[in-house]
Amino acid sequence: MTTIHPVALSDNVEAARQQANAVALERLLNAEPVLVDVAAARDVVPGLTDNTILTSGAPLAWPQYSGGQRRSILYAALYEGLAESVEEAEKALDEGRIVVHSTQEHQCIGSVAGIYTASMPVLVVRDDTHGGTAYCNLYEGKSRHRLNYGSYNDEVRDGLRWLENTMAPVLSAALQLRGPIPLKPLMARALRLGDELHSRNTAASMLFERELTSAFIKLGSTRSAAAVSDVLGFFRDNDYMFLRIGMAAAKATADAAHGVEASTLLTGMAINCQSFAIRISGLGNQWFTGAHPRLNGKFFDGFGPRDVEWIGGESCFTEVTGLGAFAQGAAPALQAYQGGDFTTMIDNNLSLYDITLAEHPHFTIPALGFRGTPAGIDLIEVLRRHRTPMIDGGLAGRSGGQIGAGLLVPELDSFESAYQAYCHQYDPGAVPATRMDSTDRTPQESAR
Amino acid sequence: MTTIHPVALSDNVEAARQQANAVALERLLNAEPVLVDVAAARDVVPGLTDNTILTSGAPLAWPQYSGGQRRSILYAALYEGLAESVEEAEKALDEGRIVVHSTQEHQCIGSVAGIYTASMPVLVVRDDTHGGTAYCNLYEGKSRHRLNYGSYNDEVRDGLRWLENTMAPVLSAALQLRGPIPLKPLMARALRLGDELHSRNTAASMLFERELTSAFIKLGSTRSAAAVSDVLGFFRDNDYMFLRIGMAAAKATADAAHGVEASTLLTGMAINCQSFAIRISGLGNQWFTGAHPRLNGKFFDGFGPRDVEWIGGESCFTEVTGLGAFAQGAAPALQAYQGGDFTTMIDNNLSLYDITLAEHPHFTIPALGFRGTPAGIDLIEVLRRHRTPMIDGGLAGRSGGQIGAGLLVPELDSFESAYQAYCHQYDPGAVPATRMDSTDRTPQESAR
Repeated sequence: MTTIHPVALSDNVEAARQQANAVALERLLNAEPVLVDVAAARDVVPGLTDNTILTSGAPLAWPQYSGGQRRSILYAALYEGLAESVEEAEKALDEGRIVVHSTQEHQCIGSVAGIYTASMPVLVVRDDTHGGTAYCNLYEGKSRHRLNYGSYNDEVRDGLRWLENTMAPVLSAALQLRGPIPLKPLMARALRLGDELHSRNTAASMLFERELTSAFIKLGSTRSAAAVSDVLGFFRDNDYMFLRIGMAAAKATADAAHGVEASTLLTGMAINCQSFAIRISGLGNQWFTGAHPRLNGKFFDGFGPRDVEWIGGESCFTEVTGLGAFAQGAAPALQAYQGGDFTTMIDNNLSLYDITLAEHPHFTIPALGFRGTPAGIDLIEVLRRHRTPMIDGGLAGRSGGQIGAGLLVPELDSFESAYQAYCHQYDPGAVPATRMDSTDRTPQESAR
Repeated sequence: MTTIHPVALSDNVEAARQQANAVALERLLNAEPVLVDVAAARDVVPGLTDNTILTSGAPLAWPQYSGGQRRSILYAALYEGLAESVEEAEKALDEGRIVVHSTQEHQCIGSVAGIYTASMPVLVVRDDTHGGTAYCNLYEGKSRHRLNYGSYNDEVRDGLRWLENTMAPVLSAALQLRGPIPLKPLMARALRLGDELHSRNTAASMLFERELTSAFIKLGSTRSAAAVSDVLGFFRDNDYMFLRIGMAAAKATADAAHGVEASTLLTGMAINCQSFAIRISGLGNQWFTGAHPRLNGKFFDGFGPRDVEWIGGESCFTEVTGLGAFAQGAAPALQAYQGGDFTTMIDNNLSLYDITLAEHPHFTIPALGFRGTPAGIDLIEVLRRHRTPMIDGGLAGRSGGQIGAGLLVPELDSFESAYQAYCHQYDPGAVPATRMDSTDRTPQESAR
């Protein structure tokens, strides 16, 4: 693979970059995400109007959304009652009566297609250290068919209504009784219990449920008793429950590290139907796009690599904060879901120290002698080492629904594109003379 | 180390032995321990009279109990109100007005000194496959000072009373609401969450609590609300809670495999102040004793190897059933408690396949690609390989209380002693002509 090798930055730029990275890194490592509430998106998400639909990935104009991600947006319009039919929804979107934005433009984070409408409940996570807030909507359950995986039918709709009418009020009431839940200690503990907090959240889901047990007992003696029982049943069936909380924590954490002038720290990775994209702390709100990741997947029965469709995904923010694939050595049981073997997982995990600036002071890997997870991905190290971050992820199918899970490895192109932009902005003399793309695809910077 | 090498058994004995081992092994692997009740020992433990005290290890006569184990028995008499002072208790024991038995004579299993009195609550675990029942009393909590670790004071006494008056009634009521809890699926799952189910029980404790959450909610709306809240607080503070349940399961499981004519399967390991001891499926109720295990410990601050005192212990029945050290590869975080490093833990775990007859069909190790744990220790393989079982265990101090944890490795002597007995009983021609002890100690078969 031909890649751009970063030329040396001038000394003063390099000094400023390192100083900036230390600041951004400190913010990334010391964010303190706390779950404070569960509320309807329209009531808490900044700028989310009743006719707005949010979806994952670098922002695109409506006509650019295709395939399963486009279908998911249309289904969302039906779910929200903004249209009576897919055709009507399409017309309303074409005419701008329904608008589609990226989750990233509203402090939200999307799982797979990441579909939000105004009435959907969201988890509200505040970073107590730096004051930022991030949002994530709720897990739909373990059915292969979910709106965020591009599926929609009566069962999907009823599940979403249940989240609105049962899960959200119970969680909200329980949180009011219990008070805010600091997430970092819980997440650190989950790593000692075999989670990596992207594709395995079994322990964290139990730890979270346990935080609310006393509140559930109090609610159980009120008229909410039946709802509490339903919610416990959902928890029992869904080991993935915590992921959305962890994603909101990752978004709040990455946002805290974003916006440090001259820093080359990676502060976001996001996928939409068109591209994989990254953002860099010192490069503002630009998303630098590239080809979709390479994929080493384990598929549900009857599915294979050719059935995969990219319909979006931002759960890879967990990797940005030193979790997921960056903590895979903590989760040997993940093999059963995602494939691979533990020796390879350990080797993969170790390789990621090459492109990170720190060993996480709070998130540790027992199998590596409690070494801190590799955390703080540096754009420059990625390019120097020709090694991109790895991502644990779920896979969506062309026909809708989840079809497997796997290890995703982005191409270098989006990183090269970001490097060019960095040089242009901070060190014009260091701009590479020739652009050597690693793929046929022209990297595009999405503008908005 | 000089050891007895087993001579060849005659062909017909060897054939019978292998057939018997297959039967015993099948019983060991397919026992289905289920937690059915929590009740006062006097109400459920066979033969336990009000003036009986039970303690861990191969049976000894009262005068043979020394040191911390002797003190624990005397303290138990005080706790139970059988004596007003240690002196009075000693006199009553000397005169036979208070009697001391081994836990093993009453289908019980003891943690460290393993002290039972008639009023103490016990967990009742039934093997649904074979119909046997085993009992274990309750965990006293994480204080370094506990009666089962040879400590006694007002705090220890109050803690034991709280188990009787609060914990046991709540657990019993919750179990009645919920119904019996099958333990094997829960334990299998805990191995995927980083437990090895002897020295690490964090996940199993959470899974167990979770089994009772709905029942706790129901109890929370009754006059038991305050007690339920107390019990939840104890669960929250005590990650070791599950061990006693797992021990009762191990005892029920090992007992199911015991008593198969001609089998050389190990069906028990137990420690008292005088010796380490084993029992063998085909050799009846004899315990074959030997020197205390060698020890590789990690000590709490201020303590070292010289402070260790052997005061009893039967939690090594977990190892007999393919757990504990036999599943250490499932529990990388155990290093923090017990020392060592994960590579060594994996190597140790792998070495135990040498002395076992099966890979457990239900208990698996994620880091070994979900290979079944080594299960079913064979006396003959131990002697052939000169490799004894390993044991994860807590360490008691001379001054009372827990002082650390570590990996215990028994000497070969008890196994040699059992082999001699096996030859005497089944194949007199194969009895080794000369006894070559591996230690100065004369192995003794305790009789009773």
